[in-house]
Amino acid sequence: MSHSPQYAVRLHDAIRRSETPALVGLDPRFEQLPDTLVRAARCRQLDEAATVASAFEEFCCRVIDVVSPLVPAVKPQAAFFEEWGPDGCRSLGHVIRYARRAGLLVICDAKRGDIGSTAEAYARGYLAGSDPDAAIWGADALTVNPYLGRDTLEPFIDVARQRGAGIYVLVRTSNRGARTFQDIRSDSQPLYRYVAQVVDELAVATAGGGDFGLVGAVVGATYPKELAELRNAMPHAPLLVPGYGSQGGTAADVADAFTPQGLGALVNSSRGINFAFRHKPYADRFAPDEWEQAVEAATRRMIDDLAEQTPAGNLRAGPECSSRLL
Amino acid sequence: MSHSPQYAVRLHDAIRRSETPALVGLDPRFEQLPDTLVRAARCRQLDEAATVASAFEEFCCRVIDVVSPLVPAVKPQAAFFEEWGPDGCRSLGHVIRYARRAGLLVICDAKRGDIGSTAEAYARGYLAGSDPDAAIWGADALTVNPYLGRDTLEPFIDVARQRGAGIYVLVRTSNRGARTFQDIRSDSQPLYRYVAQVVDELAVATAGGGDFGLVGAVVGATYPKELAELRNAMPHAPLLVPGYGSQGGTAADVADAFTPQGLGALVNSSRGINFAFRHKPYADRFAPDEWEQAVEAATRRMIDDLAEQTPAGNLRAGPECSSRLL
Repeated sequence: MSHSPQYAVRLHDAIRRSETPALVGLDPRFEQLPDTLVRAARCRQLDEAATVASAFEEFCCRVIDVVSPLVPAVKPQAAFFEEWGPDGCRSLGHVIRYARRAGLLVICDAKRGDIGSTAEAYARGYLAGSDPDAAIWGADALTVNPYLGRDTLEPFIDVARQRGAGIYVLVRTSNRGARTFQDIRSDSQPLYRYVAQVVDELAVATAGGGDFGLVGAVVGATYPKELAELRNAMPHAPLLVPGYGSQGGTAADVADAFTPQGLGALVNSSRGINFAFRHKPYADRFAPDEWEQAVEAATRRMIDDLAEQTPAGNLRAGPECSSRLL
Repeated sequence: MSHSPQYAVRLHDAIRRSETPALVGLDPRFEQLPDTLVRAARCRQLDEAATVASAFEEFCCRVIDVVSPLVPAVKPQAAFFEEWGPDGCRSLGHVIRYARRAGLLVICDAKRGDIGSTAEAYARGYLAGSDPDAAIWGADALTVNPYLGRDTLEPFIDVARQRGAGIYVLVRTSNRGARTFQDIRSDSQPLYRYVAQVVDELAVATAGGGDFGLVGAVVGATYPKELAELRNAMPHAPLLVPGYGSQGGTAADVADAFTPQGLGALVNSSRGINFAFRHKPYADRFAPDEWEQAVEAATRRMIDDLAEQTPAGNLRAGPECSSRLL
């Protein structure tokens, strides 16, 4: 029984409110942070890990300040924080809280997965859902790896259902080598389609009468044909689509991820937004100290790109938009 | 090029020295900790997460004190620490360091997996190898999930090779639902055999002339027939065998994991050792405050069981043992 607003409802409210499915990844990479920000962190901390962690906090929170009026959600990548040990972990927790307070949905990209009561421990720790204080890490949703089997997804679903949280199961990842195992075929159907089938069953079972359930799927923008196929195979699963931008996926490539109304999917960009100030065309337009303006310009460009090339454009033509014109 | 003693060499040195392949899992579950230990932690900390984290540290370090003269390695389960947020993460780091100082190999059971530079971040953070200070988390080895593909294992292998660390790739997990995806068959071969094939190729490529490489495999004791099959399919991969004890696997079930000399595998028990004082036969023999004696008795029982029922018994008949008898 659900005690909180369902994840899919919360997700779509956020998407409709910001009129875009653009998801900003938070991928702090120390060597790419703005120099002034790193120098300031060195003044605050003596220890290396504490310096990095402090710089990550400032960087991510300033990105959040820029993007929270523009997008519905952010996706911190746990690996970059964990690399710096317990200090990095503390920063991850801080950044998630900060994003929640700024009104953003937070999808923690930690790709967890384990068996039984171990999976339960991850679920209880990460999945806060509608009340950020319901779990110590405070996330709205978590990415989850399906290799261990269907029964290992269930503890995540149980916790998510109670709290109005969601999970995104890896179905088709965006890397080149995704084919090694995900494409192994049985009865002419690749493994990722078997995973998709389970995901959609679990999405239906958790939809509570709505169109979408709390179990979603990660499907890379770098495999556009399969994205269309998987949208059809999982009509009840919210999609998380990585691979747009730096990884080579275009807005046209992700068009099939959406319903005609522009719902049902979030499209992620991380590096292309976080470090826009280091790359063309933004490096020419903004000085390094104007990195936040570059973040804003890159985010706006992505939003427009998705609106022009995908059904996400229909989010802008909705009733909210017309009433605002009156 | 390897700059440090290879993982397989370090692993087998440790197994030969302790004359057993018994691996003690560190699975701190707050509600099962000894009461006196929890009460003491409440005196030290006011905040709940800090209390739990402090109790975990004391519990795990005392388990380490008991088992370090007996076994070659411990396996902390990251989920139980992470559940308690940044405080829990700090305890995990502390426990790993403490175990390393006690002379144990540490396999961090975090089942990580991600693409490209993200996988690299996990690898750099966790895999310390022979020098505990080479990575912030200080582990000798890490469990890794293969679903994302072969290319996502490579960043882990590159870092592990440089540092004398190892990885254990999930091949056949010990849970009931392991079959959902791991048994999907293509050309009459199940997925887990495809993963095993890649694991053995990577193990051969990293063996540096030795019998075993730095890439190992997780294969559950709860599927004994498949354990034998997988030992043959991956002759160069060190095995990590969960599922002994509480999960139902017996010593006879894991006998096929070993070479005739009793090498090539570690067999894990977590709950059965950690919380021995709560269960038969130890609950009858030891008072709750004698929980460490229960840990010792359960560990010795497992060691004897493996020596009696598996080729691990041959570790005791080695030259070290005979020379000690002189």
